[in-house]
Amino acid sequence: MRTQVVIIGAGPSGLLLSQLLHLAGVDCVVLERRDPEYVLSRIRAGVLEQGMVDMLERAGVSDRMRKEGLPHDGFTLSVTDTRLRIDLKGLTGGKSVMVYGQTEVTRDLMDAHRARDGKVIYEASNVAPLDFDGPNPRVTYDKDGTSHEIACDFICGCDGFHGVSRASVPDGAITEYEKVYPFGWLGILSYVKPVDHELIYANHPNGFALASMRSKKLSRYYIQVPTGTDVNAWSDDAIWDELKIRLGSEAADRIETGPSIEKSIAPLRSFVAEPLRFGRLMLAGDAGHIVPPTGAKGLNLAASDIHYLSEALIEFYGENSAAGIDSYSQKALARIWKAERFSWWMTMLLHQFPDLGPFNARMQQADMDYLASSHAAQVSLAENYVGLPY
Amino acid sequence: MRTQVVIIGAGPSGLLLSQLLHLAGVDCVVLERRDPEYVLSRIRAGVLEQGMVDMLERAGVSDRMRKEGLPHDGFTLSVTDTRLRIDLKGLTGGKSVMVYGQTEVTRDLMDAHRARDGKVIYEASNVAPLDFDGPNPRVTYDKDGTSHEIACDFICGCDGFHGVSRASVPDGAITEYEKVYPFGWLGILSYVKPVDHELIYANHPNGFALASMRSKKLSRYYIQVPTGTDVNAWSDDAIWDELKIRLGSEAADRIETGPSIEKSIAPLRSFVAEPLRFGRLMLAGDAGHIVPPTGAKGLNLAASDIHYLSEALIEFYGENSAAGIDSYSQKALARIWKAERFSWWMTMLLHQFPDLGPFNARMQQADMDYLASSHAAQVSLAENYVGLPY
Repeated sequence: MRTQVVIIGAGPSGLLLSQLLHLAGVDCVVLERRDPEYVLSRIRAGVLEQGMVDMLERAGVSDRMRKEGLPHDGFTLSVTDTRLRIDLKGLTGGKSVMVYGQTEVTRDLMDAHRARDGKVIYEASNVAPLDFDGPNPRVTYDKDGTSHEIACDFICGCDGFHGVSRASVPDGAITEYEKVYPFGWLGILSYVKPVDHELIYANHPNGFALASMRSKKLSRYYIQVPTGTDVNAWSDDAIWDELKIRLGSEAADRIETGPSIEKSIAPLRSFVAEPLRFGRLMLAGDAGHIVPPTGAKGLNLAASDIHYLSEALIEFYGENSAAGIDSYSQKALARIWKAERFSWWMTMLLHQFPDLGPFNARMQQADMDYLASSHAAQVSLAENYVGLPY
Repeated sequence: MRTQVVIIGAGPSGLLLSQLLHLAGVDCVVLERRDPEYVLSRIRAGVLEQGMVDMLERAGVSDRMRKEGLPHDGFTLSVTDTRLRIDLKGLTGGKSVMVYGQTEVTRDLMDAHRARDGKVIYEASNVAPLDFDGPNPRVTYDKDGTSHEIACDFICGCDGFHGVSRASVPDGAITEYEKVYPFGWLGILSYVKPVDHELIYANHPNGFALASMRSKKLSRYYIQVPTGTDVNAWSDDAIWDELKIRLGSEAADRIETGPSIEKSIAPLRSFVAEPLRFGRLMLAGDAGHIVPPTGAKGLNLAASDIHYLSEALIEFYGENSAAGIDSYSQKALARIWKAERFSWWMTMLLHQFPDLGPFNARMQQADMDYLASSHAAQVSLAENYVGLPY
């Protein structure tokens, strides 16, 4: 088989790239190790930047999001019992974010692929990107007991942090930057009404908590737990009790509780691989970088990679120019590092760090006090939260 | 002897407080361990916030500053060969800073005291603030071989980090927060024309450098050196050579060099004591807190303490109200912690940290890149640099 672009990974990054390339007449094939149900079962992010919303619009997959997604014009920071609303719309001159689950984005993209008979090969095992250092890369994989090979011009690695794409880059060609935080987020999904119509990020002496949602009936809550915590050590009741403490008395009085339909712990990590291009292999999304979820940048950063990458590939085929391919890594990384900075800063601001020490703990509090008193500091937070320009 | 307020320390904080109290008809005596020449020989800060300039005006000691001081509307950040000018005036709606040495401020205050025959007792040894936990505090000291005692209503400790005032507070009444940085600033004072009409703060892989000035003919330069560096290990020539490297090629081509008239190393430290009031003893300036010099907040923070403290004392005597005295510590500390945050942030941004690690080093660079790209981030920096409101 031959195509122009092989995309490894059928998560939201890979499917969005495939969709954008299809609309521009670029031929591509998506390879996915799992089946569609597994892909859809991954509960992840749910806050989309304006720029990603616009991309989904351009990709023709925004109808349901426009109907079911919840535009949010602000969010609340709660530190013990002090509350500060960040007026995203007012602070950024009209920008906002859209609460719409990653699962829903993926489902919409899957539907679009099905409708146009797009080439997505699920349950492709032993995927191997090969010869990407020369002009004729290829990808081999196994499916239904048979080996296959696809010749192509470019390989796009959209297969996440543990995927084969980054792992295929020769030793020494890649530099990795990493920070591991000494805690994770214990998340609970429950069919209860969200405690607030906007998100609440709380830093309480007991630890961080986040009141979030997927819809007006489906709530998503998180609490900070130490690394190594067993998810089974936390009953639903214990989680609700802890949320009531950490979110502050005002939220505690209003919170609606119910049984969890999903409960899991995600570790917090900052990670960047440099560069993101190796000959004719390009990495995008979690394959190249991870942010801690504070600030909701992970999916949005994948989308901005796909923005630069789709433009580069469309330019290559449409204008016979490799300029976009050549600058992809640099352009994407400039924005990635800024989002890494913001996610790191917001993580440092809102969590309890066991080894922070008294002075740095007061710096954390001073950061919050300054934020509460400064319009400029709030504009800075807001412009990062709604997403810096592509 | 009896007075209303005893001020310990005749540096700029103590003399400014004495001057403001005098103008309001509050009687006070200033005790200073050293002689006036020693006090004037201390080469310190030289960048005054608008709020401090206004205070000196109100104190009637601004004539020479208005003539000889250099108003600065901006400064430059230099990271390797990238330069970013921070337009203080444009970013803050018209605010600026005044370059005028601490020595000159002190000299003007000394002249004002002399002119009105203000009570400043120099070379007072064994100064001891006593009984400040009750209604009748007193201060004892030795002078010319004789012991003296001054009965008073209040004692103001303006005697610096190593002074007797903070040391007199009983164990357990005070909480100290501290961060010591693993480097110092090697400073050189030289009668050469400043390399630029504004300050240049540089972060070079070799370390931080600052091109500053005291006047249009007197330059003050600094370079970051590891803790424990012997000042004699750095010849004038070696310092000039290093400055040329760290300030970047554009500055290196223009820098004028000459013999040093002063050369010393100051360690970098963040320190806050809480609270700042113990009965009828109040601490102000370095006696209560230290900032690293990045951001030039030390003297200005002493001035804002004196603002709150003078208002509190004037209110006490004028309106027979202790409200200002009761809230002094809280009001002063709210602003101190914000200035500590800013000084810490600017120190983290602009220095080389031996143990930073690759990820945090990239966060430092991302902070700078974000600053260069964001108007809001520049406004935030500028509003802190010109001084947050009292």
